[in-house]
Amino acid sequence: MGLPADCGLELHGKWASGPRDLITDVPGVAVGHATIRQGDINTGVTAILPHGGDLFHEKVTAACSVINGFGKSVGLVQVEELGTIESPIMMTNTLSVGTVLDATVRYMLERNADIGVTTGTVNCVVTECNDGALNDIRGMHVMEQHVRQALAACGPDFQEGAVGSGAGMVCMGLKGGIGSASRVVPLDGTDYTVGAIVMSNFGRAGDLVIGGRRYDVRQAYPAPDADADRDRDKGSIIIVLATDIPLNERQLKRVAKRAAIALGRVGSFCGNGSGDIAIAFTTANNRPHASAQSILTQRFLLDDDMDSVFEAAVEAVEESIVSSLYHARTTTGVRGNTYPGFLSCRWE
Amino acid sequence: MGLPADCGLELHGKWASGPRDLITDVPGVAVGHATIRQGDINTGVTAILPHGGDLFHEKVTAACSVINGFGKSVGLVQVEELGTIESPIMMTNTLSVGTVLDATVRYMLERNADIGVTTGTVNCVVTECNDGALNDIRGMHVMEQHVRQALAACGPDFQEGAVGSGAGMVCMGLKGGIGSASRVVPLDGTDYTVGAIVMSNFGRAGDLVIGGRRYDVRQAYPAPDADADRDRDKGSIIIVLATDIPLNERQLKRVAKRAAIALGRVGSFCGNGSGDIAIAFTTANNRPHASAQSILTQRFLLDDDMDSVFEAAVEAVEESIVSSLYHARTTTGVRGNTYPGFLSCRWE
Amino acid sequence: MGLPADCGLELHGKWASGPRDLITDVPGVAVGHATIRQGDINTGVTAILPHGGDLFHEKVTAACSVINGFGKSVGLVQVEELGTIESPIMMTNTLSVGTVLDATVRYMLERNADIGVTTGTVNCVVTECNDGALNDIRGMHVMEQHVRQALAACGPDFQEGAVGSGAGMVCMGLKGGIGSASRVVPLDGTDYTVGAIVMSNFGRAGDLVIGGRRYDVRQAYPAPDADADRDRDKGSIIIVLATDIPLNERQLKRVAKRAAIALGRVGSFCGNGSGDIAIAFTTANNRPHASAQSILTQRFLLDDDMDSVFEAAVEAVEESIVSSLYHARTTTGVRGNTYPGFLSCRWE
Amino acid sequence: MGLPADCGLELHGKWASGPRDLITDVPGVAVGHATIRQGDINTGVTAILPHGGDLFHEKVTAACSVINGFGKSVGLVQVEELGTIESPIMMTNTLSVGTVLDATVRYMLERNADIGVTTGTVNCVVTECNDGALNDIRGMHVMEQHVRQALAACGPDFQEGAVGSGAGMVCMGLKGGIGSASRVVPLDGTDYTVGAIVMSNFGRAGDLVIGGRRYDVRQAYPAPDADADRDRDKGSIIIVLATDIPLNERQLKRVAKRAAIALGRVGSFCGNGSGDIAIAFTTANNRPHASAQSILTQRFLLDDDMDSVFEAAVEAVEESIVSSLYHARTTTGVRGNTYPGFLSCRWE
Repeated sequence: MGLPADCGLELHGKWASGPRDLITDVPGVAVGHATIRQGDINTGVTAILPHGGDLFHEKVTAACSVINGFGKSVGLVQVEELGTIESPIMMTNTLSVGTVLDATVRYMLERNADIGVTTGTVNCVVTECNDGALNDIRGMHVMEQHVRQALAACGPDFQEGAVGSGAGMVCMGLKGGIGSASRVVPLDGTDYTVGAIVMSNFGRAGDLVIGGRRYDVRQAYPAPDADADRDRDKGSIIIVLATDIPLNERQLKRVAKRAAIALGRVGSFCGNGSGDIAIAFTTANNRPHASAQSILTQRFLLDDDMDSVFEAAVEAVEESIVSSLYHARTTTGVRGNTYPGFLSCRWE
Repeated sequence: MGLPADCGLELHGKWASGPRDLITDVPGVAVGHATIRQGDINTGVTAILPHGGDLFHEKVTAACSVINGFGKSVGLVQVEELGTIESPIMMTNTLSVGTVLDATVRYMLERNADIGVTTGTVNCVVTECNDGALNDIRGMHVMEQHVRQALAACGPDFQEGAVGSGAGMVCMGLKGGIGSASRVVPLDGTDYTVGAIVMSNFGRAGDLVIGGRRYDVRQAYPAPDADADRDRDKGSIIIVLATDIPLNERQLKRVAKRAAIALGRVGSFCGNGSGDIAIAFTTANNRPHASAQSILTQRFLLDDDMDSVFEAAVEAVEESIVSSLYHARTTTGVRGNTYPGFLSCRWE
Repeated sequence: MGLPADCGLELHGKWASGPRDLITDVPGVAVGHATIRQGDINTGVTAILPHGGDLFHEKVTAACSVINGFGKSVGLVQVEELGTIESPIMMTNTLSVGTVLDATVRYMLERNADIGVTTGTVNCVVTECNDGALNDIRGMHVMEQHVRQALAACGPDFQEGAVGSGAGMVCMGLKGGIGSASRVVPLDGTDYTVGAIVMSNFGRAGDLVIGGRRYDVRQAYPAPDADADRDRDKGSIIIVLATDIPLNERQLKRVAKRAAIALGRVGSFCGNGSGDIAIAFTTANNRPHASAQSILTQRFLLDDDMDSVFEAAVEAVEESIVSSLYHARTTTGVRGNTYPGFLSCRWE
Repeated sequence: MGLPADCGLELHGKWASGPRDLITDVPGVAVGHATIRQGDINTGVTAILPHGGDLFHEKVTAACSVINGFGKSVGLVQVEELGTIESPIMMTNTLSVGTVLDATVRYMLERNADIGVTTGTVNCVVTECNDGALNDIRGMHVMEQHVRQALAACGPDFQEGAVGSGAGMVCMGLKGGIGSASRVVPLDGTDYTVGAIVMSNFGRAGDLVIGGRRYDVRQAYPAPDADADRDRDKGSIIIVLATDIPLNERQLKRVAKRAAIALGRVGSFCGNGSGDIAIAFTTANNRPHASAQSILTQRFLLDDDMDSVFEAAVEAVEESIVSSLYHARTTTGVRGNTYPGFLSCRWE
């Protein structure tokens, strides 16, 4: 649902949201969560399906931008080389990337009997943030079943906040997690959509800016026993942008790069320890895995008309970040650490 | 001088400025202008000397980040490969890059008799923005003499605003140009400096944000006959960061990338037509052109301690941009176009 | 003409050459030279027109690969960002890049009255190698007239060897210069062409390999007073690849990267001082500068079918390099340096 | 042992090998295998330890080069950002990357109690090639125990050929696998070493070139029922370069890029489907995970003196590739596919 209209937080945006104000306003995109919450364990898996069909045989055109590469995401090398994504895009905690990769590979193998026999292998995209401030991350509690659960849960509606892979994430000293939003962009007389979803786990306590106003959690939620680390910009943010605008992979990279602008707007300076990675895909230029014809066609936007796409992308990411905070509830986790939900703070 | 303390504009920064609040607070860095202003002509040259010695034989360690590559800057390929700058860093208008490159090469040849004979050639860095909204750019009015004039004028003190290469630049619908600022960063008990200088020529009228507050020039300076193009984000920004902190070239690239964060803070979304390029160098790791010894030493910062450098860089760039606007006077140029100085607008 | 069939040098290639065995076998591509040869002066300009029309308004889709970035080529940043070339591609000596850039900008302004007034500026691509071993490069003898002469001379037929910008180039201790070749690639029942042109100025004396056989100039042309520098791999190579195969800019970058393979085949190890830069463009996906329609179409090749393009590109570049040597005549230049033509050597 | 001196294959190299002619000639580097061979299963794990100490707390300086990014290697994003490797470098088959990543993370957690608690997470580097031509890759037969076995086996001596992760690899229509070599490079009066190890799985049957001579497996080992795929360049190659020369991360990237030259020399054209990835590290500039001092020192080589390093790296990679073929024995695997060992072919 993104940021509710009546929430009292204004972002000075220019473009209207889509009906759900979620990345799933882009037709075909689906999101699902598996949340693991038990004692010291606050973690999970979030899955993003670029479309509902056979992703391996009908790849989406895609690109990525490594804003700050202190991160362990998997699959980006091939996205860059070939300009496509051929798997679900998974989010999880840093130390569970191997498990989630393994499970996603198995999921793809089950659906495609030719992988590894008559055709090549499959490139799965798995992204991560370190939820060790609230989660017993060393316990490596994500299992294959959670990956399957998140994938099975994928649909147009999904929760935001401390859910799925966002269960244990922390952002600007607040409870972070999953946030999403969308923007409608008219081009050549047709309404297109730019959607975003983020897993927010970045920033330093006190740095949050919303619509130009600073929200200092250190005053709004004084924590005498606060984790000393609250004051460091570490963590990470994963940003996935989806659209049905016909863009080619070069243009999608340009869109992905604009995520850095949104980070600037919410008060981040992209700290050293933050793995800030943006992925952008379009559903308007799907490519076959194989084809009898060598020469195919793709549509793209005149670059001179990219400004509205760039601006909509910045706004969707900015709102997604704020929405991730807005929806996240106060969470106590490993080592007794507590991070407050935005709505539990007393903002003056 | 950067932004005066009593100017009434607050940037929410954290780090203190250096004594001049200019890039020249980094010891050895010098800046000089040649301004060309006559009728339809509003253009010029700005030169930045990384240090006062023989740049070819004592190169500064450097890196760059192409934030948006709709630009024609010269010399970046070699900076990226070798991690050094061995010439002054020049700024001018887009169509005069050839002239300025030629003149800078001649300047370097005069000072180094071995170039092209007993050693290789020289890589000169020339950056540019399109000042065609106020300048008869097609007239190509920059001459070799202006390059020499700017180089000869280099010193620790220099003007900001509509001077040098900034004479005809436009930013966010306002008169833009040259701005500079600095920040002091203590590390291991020593005070170091991060300085910035920008040539601002980017952004769309109405988008400017200072310290979280929007400044809409379309209301503060309604122009019934305004250039329709005022509403497009085109132009460009060149950002040069200098420091005396010991960083290696990988780290300088990380610093340069943070310039995008500052663009986000002042309201830009990095429009398609904007050549947004950041260059960062340090004076703390100079390299000889030749050496009897093969193995040399450089100092660098523990990456874990980069956050203060990143934040200082973001703040210095943000202030430099605002300072470029603050100091620029209303200018009328080619085709009768007028762009107002910030101080000439009626901000409510 | 590339390498003549009866020259006795065999490259083990697989793909057939086009009718001219030149880059101009790609329909529309034209090449022209201006050679400057007088006493110590051995230099010049070579121009490549991607097509015969208005390049600014009908840009070719393009990409580049910086194999080794010890070079001063101009215009690559924007090629990378926008995926297009909108000017002739110029070649000259390193210290004349400014002059050639300036002259090429003037050439474009004359043909496009809107540049810098109703539309943005123009990005000109100028490439270079250091011909200082045979040319009084410090004299900066290239003038605007030579640029115009090279552009006016552009046509489907052109000379190879020590001509144009290749007049003073040196390669593997031999006289280098301009070389070109082409390959025919059938796809979906149609014959397409991959063409290459190089300006060869790289490599160390003794390292040349042709078709697996080493050609050691130090034995074939013992020079008691040889330039000691003959034994260093310095210089550079500029490689331009053209095709009429429908590729997008990501795919053209992949093609450009394969130029490194050809360097490996002829015995180079990409020395430190070599600016090895490859540019690839296709004439099959031209883009308008402006368009009433936002959404356009481009054709591309299924990546699975790129192997024949890659292989043809490697073969065309390999032959171009050898052809540049084969056609270059022994030249004596500045400081009395002499570099022998391949045919003047006594190969055993 | 690399290529034996009496093997009859000559590579025209210039630099001498180290005592073992293996990557382990670089002091401290160790390599170990776990080979899984049973019926349709031909796969395994190879581990490379950059040094014998605590890699997490004493990281090696490193860089990588993606020559062709059709690959699924893990961990490169952070190597690029931070210039370090802090884990063993693992090699395995493509579909087992998740398992090997998971097991390597566990290995690192066991050795570092602070990961995920008082400090951040750990970046593990896992590389892969597709051994599906000889291995039941869909069966995902690599288990955690094999990772531990390979790590436990690490030492200065190790086998080459169809062992470890190379058990099922195929190269140029021949049985490929693991190969290694080293070169000694004197600098400033000291002998340094450049070592390489490859997992060869690339190239098309018939394309192999050794020392300029073509070795066509299609004639040397005619296989009436040969896998039709033998004629496609698919697969991949992973190249790891180690040295004790003091280089910084920019310079290591330059070294890693030269691996492409070696591919050109052995007859590859870097086919579309090949994930060609090179990683280079030095043991001469190790970095602490944390430090009380912010400012540290690293040594680097004057870039002008890099040519011998580049050439030694090219030679070591070229020999490693040939050595991987030389040592690999004929193997029959999944679907009855057989790929001959080099020594089993009848070369004319």
